[in-house]
Amino acid sequence: MDPPREKWKNKFNEWFREVIYKAEVYDYRYPVKGIGVWPPYGMKIRNNVISILKDLLNQTGHEEVLFPLLIPEEILRKESEHIEKFEDEVFWVTYGGRKKLERKLALRPTSETAIMEMLKLWIKDHTDLPFRIYQIVNVFRYETKATQPMIRLREVTMFKEAHTAHATMEDAEKQVRSAIEIYKKFFDELCIPYMISQRPEWDKFAGAVYTIAFDTLMPDGRTLQIGTVHNLGQNFSRAFEVTYLKPDGTHEFVYTTSYGISERVIAALIAVHGDDHGLVLPYNIAPIQVVIVPIPYKGTENTVFELCNRVIKVLKEIGLRVYLDDREDITPGEKFYYWELKGVPLRIEIGPRDVANNCVTVSRRDTLERKVISIAEIKTKIPELLEDIRRNLRARARKWLQQHTFFSEKLEEAANIVNNRKGIVVVPWCGDTDCGLNIEDSLEGSVLGIPLDLEINVKGKRCIMCGKEAKTVIRVSKTY
Amino acid sequence: MDPPREKWKNKFNEWFREVIYKAEVYDYRYPVKGIGVWPPYGMKIRNNVISILKDLLNQTGHEEVLFPLLIPEEILRKESEHIEKFEDEVFWVTYGGRKKLERKLALRPTSETAIMEMLKLWIKDHTDLPFRIYQIVNVFRYETKATQPMIRLREVTMFKEAHTAHATMEDAEKQVRSAIEIYKKFFDELCIPYMISQRPEWDKFAGAVYTIAFDTLMPDGRTLQIGTVHNLGQNFSRAFEVTYLKPDGTHEFVYTTSYGISERVIAALIAVHGDDHGLVLPYNIAPIQVVIVPIPYKGTENTVFELCNRVIKVLKEIGLRVYLDDREDITPGEKFYYWELKGVPLRIEIGPRDVANNCVTVSRRDTLERKVISIAEIKTKIPELLEDIRRNLRARARKWLQQHTFFSEKLEEAANIVNNRKGIVVVPWCGDTDCGLNIEDSLEGSVLGIPLDLEINVKGKRCIMCGKEAKTVIRVSKTY
Repeated sequence: MDPPREKWKNKFNEWFREVIYKAEVYDYRYPVKGIGVWPPYGMKIRNNVISILKDLLNQTGHEEVLFPLLIPEEILRKESEHIEKFEDEVFWVTYGGRKKLERKLALRPTSETAIMEMLKLWIKDHTDLPFRIYQIVNVFRYETKATQPMIRLREVTMFKEAHTAHATMEDAEKQVRSAIEIYKKFFDELCIPYMISQRPEWDKFAGAVYTIAFDTLMPDGRTLQIGTVHNLGQNFSRAFEVTYLKPDGTHEFVYTTSYGISERVIAALIAVHGDDHGLVLPYNIAPIQVVIVPIPYKGTENTVFELCNRVIKVLKEIGLRVYLDDREDITPGEKFYYWELKGVPLRIEIGPRDVANNCVTVSRRDTLERKVISIAEIKTKIPELLEDIRRNLRARARKWLQQHTFFSEKLEEAANIVNNRKGIVVVPWCGDTDCGLNIEDSLEGSVLGIPLDLEINVKGKRCIMCGKEAKTVIRVSKTY
Repeated sequence: MDPPREKWKNKFNEWFREVIYKAEVYDYRYPVKGIGVWPPYGMKIRNNVISILKDLLNQTGHEEVLFPLLIPEEILRKESEHIEKFEDEVFWVTYGGRKKLERKLALRPTSETAIMEMLKLWIKDHTDLPFRIYQIVNVFRYETKATQPMIRLREVTMFKEAHTAHATMEDAEKQVRSAIEIYKKFFDELCIPYMISQRPEWDKFAGAVYTIAFDTLMPDGRTLQIGTVHNLGQNFSRAFEVTYLKPDGTHEFVYTTSYGISERVIAALIAVHGDDHGLVLPYNIAPIQVVIVPIPYKGTENTVFELCNRVIKVLKEIGLRVYLDDREDITPGEKFYYWELKGVPLRIEIGPRDVANNCVTVSRRDTLERKVISIAEIKTKIPELLEDIRRNLRARARKWLQQHTFFSEKLEEAANIVNNRKGIVVVPWCGDTDCGLNIEDSLEGSVLGIPLDLEINVKGKRCIMCGKEAKTVIRVSKTY
């Protein structure tokens, strides 16, 4: 069974809000706009996601650090393009107690400036390079548009920002490619399908030489940016005077990059895999991987619970997160409903017949299919099933993205795709900024940029807007 | 060798600042007063400390959550004693971009108010109780006194705050006792000696019925508060209208507690164990537990490195964090100095003679003693040594605290102890607040409160201030 995404097209927001609230992933009833609470179940999902991300970064030469939240105004202003973009989005602290502060302090919207201020002290010599750090912190944006839980927030609480410094532009480029590989692995782990695009000039990060972004497609036909990688060149190092001593005795400004991921990945995870029953979680993210529901009839309680405990023991021994739902005040049916909502990948039902046949009944969350497994096979079959569910989640989400990616050379056709939120359209483009902006206007969508994960052959193709020779193609969609 | 704490008495601050900077635990050069950066090495220490704390909380029925940083003014004001105390300490956000906000938002100084606001929605029924959550977050205080790295901060970055709700005052009391047990285990894990005192009325947490605090003694003779446990009774639940349905159909306000720990524990860890060479870390906290320093002479490189790798393999197999310092541009002596500064519990030196004798030379960080161990013994002796170092750290720190705790019934003598920062003095007290405040004035110190970890027998004793019959004793010291 595939998630009924087409059906949701116009009620996705409703579905999303309902499922994250009911499954206790995120509580948006906190009385400040665009700011919410992570209750225990959501926090466990989040910790599992963070753990995968940290492992990937730690394995690739990144070290975790922690920088302050508050950035003095004069430091935030050092890189001019940067502040120009963030000027309208920054929250300012102006009072300490009853006393007006002598200088305003910004709540970090991102930490390039705070970090560059310290890199100036930390980096001296070419042997200090490459330099790779990351932190997972809260950042703030004064969003004036409609906010949305986990997606468009005023307090982003899970911002993983990596920052690197290098001796040459070539090394910075290499780091960008390495960051892309890390993110690919990360999204693959989460079974989230993605498109990689180089953002157009008019949509790159404020202060970047260029920005590469990961987008996924949400069930309502809009794309969601889930990760970005910026090559900052020497823009920030010049503004902050971060230089290093070269082997030849001269000094040069370092080349820096930065790349980020936020709780939007959890929103994407929920959106691309969920169905009418609720969450569907891959087992590496699921706080509970297997739930055991005993179905005892009068007089069989002892033997049923005995088998439950045997099964739990076997599964714990192979390192699985198992939970026995032995609540007495609700029916097995209510338990099924509850754990499906929570997205537990596998449910094992154990009743007297299972005891008699020395087997269990297993129900997989992705397809809701049930089958019987003998006790002897549990140790091997359960991990296989969990892996198979993950494979299926990844495959069907990818397929859906592919099915909703269109190529068009006709403006009207392309506009129809974007306007009706059918998905992403790839169109030929001459490379001219004005043409790009006109395409956005005509299609009533956003240019995601030049695909880095598609083979592009535009020989003989014409720009969809001006009709001149196309230099490349660009992805266009409605976006979040 | 004991840390030369007496010697440091008047230069402790200097020593502390120097060692956390040089060992790269904490960088206080960030250009905002009372706010600093955690570089990679400090972050690893911090993560190890957090991991121990989280395990203890997770094992005792607490669930991790995450609440917002920003608290609207009207919510912070709901509990009147609370805001009265924090009024002068709160940072206020007043602008979003260029726009003045309609209502001021506080940077949380602590999260009781934000959490009560949600508990009102989360707790309905007696079956929802007991309710235990915690989070590890940054909190802010507009400190006007002199700030101090990791000790007196404007941004506290590692605030673990637990919050619980209960059906009865008795259950809340039980939770307070349970929290004290958790903290005792935690400080024991860190080998930090502590005193447990019930804070006097005039020094309890703003909004609490009573506060119990953990203090340790710093080398300069002042005590440092390293943990607090508050019984909040119904003070917050009344202000926020958090009630639950009792089995008899009536509603009652819940009883709440809260308890906190911050990065001050890391400051204490460094202060109580460190010596003239730098940090001294217990192995469960040390990012690197064993460092291997090869000492090859020309021609012996191969055999020396071969033995290094054999030793590393053995130690990794038993789960230790081992590091081979194979830098070629510095001498073994410089390496010794470097790793002693970083507090690595054990150093293993391997030279040609060790190869010839099939042994290694081990140097322990706490006593700087060296001894030779045969290769065959490594697997058992190294873990034993690490455990022995931890035992020694705990014992000598405890002893030092005991040696600096005095009992006095004479005002002049007691004043001399506190004033000259000799340590803590325990004095008889009649229980009267005015007398307590007079004791603080006369001794030029602070009343830590009534000891909960000492047997108190005041039969026949007289209040050190007024001479009336003593009801109890209180601890007094100079404090941070």
